Amino acid sequence: MQPVITAFDWVPDFARGQVRDLRVRWALEEVGQPYRVRYLAQGEQKAPPHRARQPFGQVPTYEEGELVLYESGAIVLHLADSRDGLLPDDRLGRARATEWAFAALNTVEPPIMDHAIATLFEADQPWSRPRLPAVEARIAERLGEVAARLGEREWYDGAFSAGDLLMVAVLRILRDHPLLAAQPTLAAYVARGEARPAFRRALADQLAGFTGSPPPGFAEWIAKRAARAEQLA
Amino acid sequence: MQPVITAFDWVPDFARGQVRDLRVRWALEEVGQPYRVRYLAQGEQKAPPHRARQPFGQVPTYEEGELVLYESGAIVLHLADSRDGLLPDDRLGRARATEWAFAALNTVEPPIMDHAIATLFEADQPWSRPRLPAVEARIAERLGEVAARLGEREWYDGAFSAGDLLMVAVLRILRDHPLLAAQPTLAAYVARGEARPAFRRALADQLAGFTGSPPPGFAEWIAKRAARAEQLA
Repeated sequence: MQPVITAFDWVPDFARGQVRDLRVRWALEEVGQPYRVRYLAQGEQKAPPHRARQPFGQVPTYEEGELVLYESGAIVLHLADSRDGLLPDDRLGRARATEWAFAALNTVEPPIMDHAIATLFEADQPWSRPRLPAVEARIAERLGEVAARLGEREWYDGAFSAGDLLMVAVLRILRDHPLLAAQPTLAAYVARGEARPAFRRALADQLAGFTGSPPPGFAEWIAKRAARAEQLA
Repeated sequence: MQPVITAFDWVPDFARGQVRDLRVRWALEEVGQPYRVRYLAQGEQKAPPHRARQPFGQVPTYEEGELVLYESGAIVLHLADSRDGLLPDDRLGRARATEWAFAALNTVEPPIMDHAIATLFEADQPWSRPRLPAVEARIAERLGEVAARLGEREWYDGAFSAGDLLMVAVLRILRDHPLLAAQPTLAAYVARGEARPAFRRALADQLAGFTGSPPPGFAEWIAKRAARAEQLA
């Protein structure tokens, strides 16, 4: 019985290669675990059957026998805990990998997602543009600290771990943004992560899964939002 | 050899009972592990000796023999993993407790901390007040989802776990805010957590540790910020 994850059958361009099921696909590829995907059409994620799997109406989820799990961080750690390849064997090494995982998801990701909200979802709100420098300053401070701790090492603590997987996944939300380019060691760290065969398979599979259609009115919504954002510029 | 954590010797009133070492103190009390505290004076958290322990210049850290750990989520899970009392014995139960821990720190805490930034640290910025309804709407949505998933249960999945500890710690950042009061089952869940003897000891010990002095100019900074916020009101 292969585990089953959930993913969207369509997202806007800016979210392709970023939806959180990528993190779980990557972990599954790293540990060599074949899996199946249940694709959700537009709106299905907020309907009761999926809410029963995922209380926040998001993806991914992970189903394996009687286990139904959500939160990509928890799923990645569960895979790392139950298969070889993403965590060291010793308790200290496991604690350090977990520390990097939480640094990614609780310290580095919140300001980066704040930036994504300001530039993507609330770009047409009058407060977004004046506030952006403060948001970018918070990200720049965090990236400098991550770079200082990583130093010249290939991975955080010896071999590639679940912590590296999650930190690379968080940092690459910034893609080609100058904030990431300003930290060459981090840009190189992200590139190393993205060069892993397991990552490349996971990304290709996520992208290949977007075979669905946008919700009615999506093109109009995008156009209207862009026009409002331009007025404010 | 008792483990050693770090904590601040002074924080402003609004942060007392909220600084993240509380989460680790609470976990230590739950598992019955005595510990010592290294208090940091103003500014010490950003100086090189502490940065060597904590790359982001924050508290808490956790030192035990050769292990030096940061990120309160990772420390709490490490304590839960290495002592009895905060995680079930079976792998499925452990995965579910970890899922709730990540829901707390990666899904629920970011909008709540966004609110704290807007109302405490950036209250005097012109964008904070107009943006607040959008931030509060995000929190309200998340709280409704947490309440729906928790239902009438005492704890998330049977016995109190590291997941409950972290979720209660995140929800109580809102304290008496109407957003929390609007979800009576969550307010009661927080009250149950705060009534635990281990929590009460942890809170009393954190509060008793604030014996230091504010940084020079702190009172003037607070007064100036309040005046600017009032102008914008």
